[in-house]
Amino acid sequence: MRDDYRRWITVPVRWGDMDAFGHVNNAKYFTYCESARIAYFESIGISAQREATQRAPAVVTATCNFRQQVHYPATLEVGVRTSKLGRTSFTLDYGLFLEGTDTLVADGSSVVVWVDYSAQKSAPLPDDVRQTIREIDGVGS
Amino acid sequence: MRDDYRRWITVPVRWGDMDAFGHVNNAKYFTYCESARIAYFESIGISAQREATQRAPAVVTATCNFRQQVHYPATLEVGVRTSKLGRTSFTLDYGLFLEGTDTLVADGSSVVVWVDYSAQKSAPLPDDVRQTIREIDGVGS
Amino acid sequence: MRDDYRRWITVPVRWGDMDAFGHVNNAKYFTYCESARIAYFESIGISAQREATQRAPAVVTATCNFRQQVHYPATLEVGVRTSKLGRTSFTLDYGLFLEGTDTLVADGSSVVVWVDYSAQKSAPLPDDVRQTIREIDGVGS
Amino acid sequence: MRDDYRRWITVPVRWGDMDAFGHVNNAKYFTYCESARIAYFESIGISAQREATQRAPAVVTATCNFRQQVHYPATLEVGVRTSKLGRTSFTLDYGLFLEGTDTLVADGSSVVVWVDYSAQKSAPLPDDVRQTIREIDGVGS
Repeated sequence: MRDDYRRWITVPVRWGDMDAFGHVNNAKYFTYCESARIAYFESIGISAQREATQRAPAVVTATCNFRQQVHYPATLEVGVRTSKLGRTSFTLDYGLFLEGTDTLVADGSSVVVWVDYSAQKSAPLPDDVRQTIREIDGVGS
Repeated sequence: MRDDYRRWITVPVRWGDMDAFGHVNNAKYFTYCESARIAYFESIGISAQREATQRAPAVVTATCNFRQQVHYPATLEVGVRTSKLGRTSFTLDYGLFLEGTDTLVADGSSVVVWVDYSAQKSAPLPDDVRQTIREIDGVGS
Repeated sequence: MRDDYRRWITVPVRWGDMDAFGHVNNAKYFTYCESARIAYFESIGISAQREATQRAPAVVTATCNFRQQVHYPATLEVGVRTSKLGRTSFTLDYGLFLEGTDTLVADGSSVVVWVDYSAQKSAPLPDDVRQTIREIDGVGS
Repeated sequence: MRDDYRRWITVPVRWGDMDAFGHVNNAKYFTYCESARIAYFESIGISAQREATQRAPAVVTATCNFRQQVHYPATLEVGVRTSKLGRTSFTLDYGLFLEGTDTLVADGSSVVVWVDYSAQKSAPLPDDVRQTIREIDGVGS
């Protein structure tokens, strides 16, 4: 399962990430995935595109499966990859593991659409972004 | 669509809910849904069960579809209902609307499993909880 | 003590504002004060100034005294006022009360400096902002 | 200034720590200080005390001075020490530095009171806690 991911970030769980149930709050997993997504976006040059053009990726759907409770102290490793590459959108998968182990505490995905903000509609993924995603994650189309 | 929901909460968006993109952060929608879920749980007597027994509901999956950006200042109304009622689990649906309008800014769902924490496994939903859910939301089984 | 404040906001405590100690987390009080500050800034025309000029207020110090634990469910009323008005800075005081009561759960303050971001230094408060603050809160200088 | 601190934690700034002004939100600095405080509490055996007795530390005041804006990506090192040791309370100081530098981006402090929760009042700091604090931070009394 870890082998599915080329790109990784490390997330130290903060004490404050826990809620009144004494475990990491559901919403925080989406923040962890967001951290992975932002790092991934930077590695494929999307942050630069955002600055240079009126176009940028927008998350339209986010899902997470909570497989095991997490408590502070803990460190997570979050793998991220493109599992599906469309014309104007792509799907990111996330795997959240306890550091240095194969213990999957959660996994999830986001559908990301390329948006032309000036026209207020979706736009084709730039060729170089598409190419970089293919090179990193080996997804087709 | 608003008619789908019997139970509602009102959520004033906080300025601090916005992120560096200048709109409400993705993870916050899950906090809004959590607020609705906690209120729903209280209305069907689940909080009391948690105290009295070793059994309580656990969210195993959460999903959200982001349909429209939200910016401070705004107030949301979040509807919540059980859309599916199983033996040991049920599915909650959420609809997030701009206050006083039919504008759906997001919708989502959570799968909630009834967990016997002492045995560390799922358990049948208590009959009175099941009955209350049926009365409120009219779901079968 | 409530009489000290002309400007108020209402903050419903979210379940997710609580931490693993089962009460509202310390950092959240600063978010509540921030909500009051943003509303206050809007009421004195500062948001408009931020857009129109290169100048805007920056918080340089924040303090909070935690007088009583708060648990969900609860609603707070946060009063905000300028207690000190300088040439390039002013001090905001906050009082956080349980809704409809004189029970002060916390109070705090922020020092806010007027910053010229293009010159990267502090700047005199605009006369109209100074005048509006005086009218609302009756502070001298 | 770094020499003032014996105990340190490292905090990777998350993209989501930033707010709509595009810099790390004020309230997050208190979360960073909280992370340092919790680690410090563990290193002096306070977490164990909380479990074993009805007594535990409670933060009654928190302050932070924001000296420099922080933007993602960044990693902070937070130093923490007891600067004042009283009979029933002590003061923690925090220094937040950019990793590997002497650049102080913020500093702050908390007053922490030892509370007997069963009696609902302050209590003398346990001798072994007091002794450990003295050994680490060399504060008198």
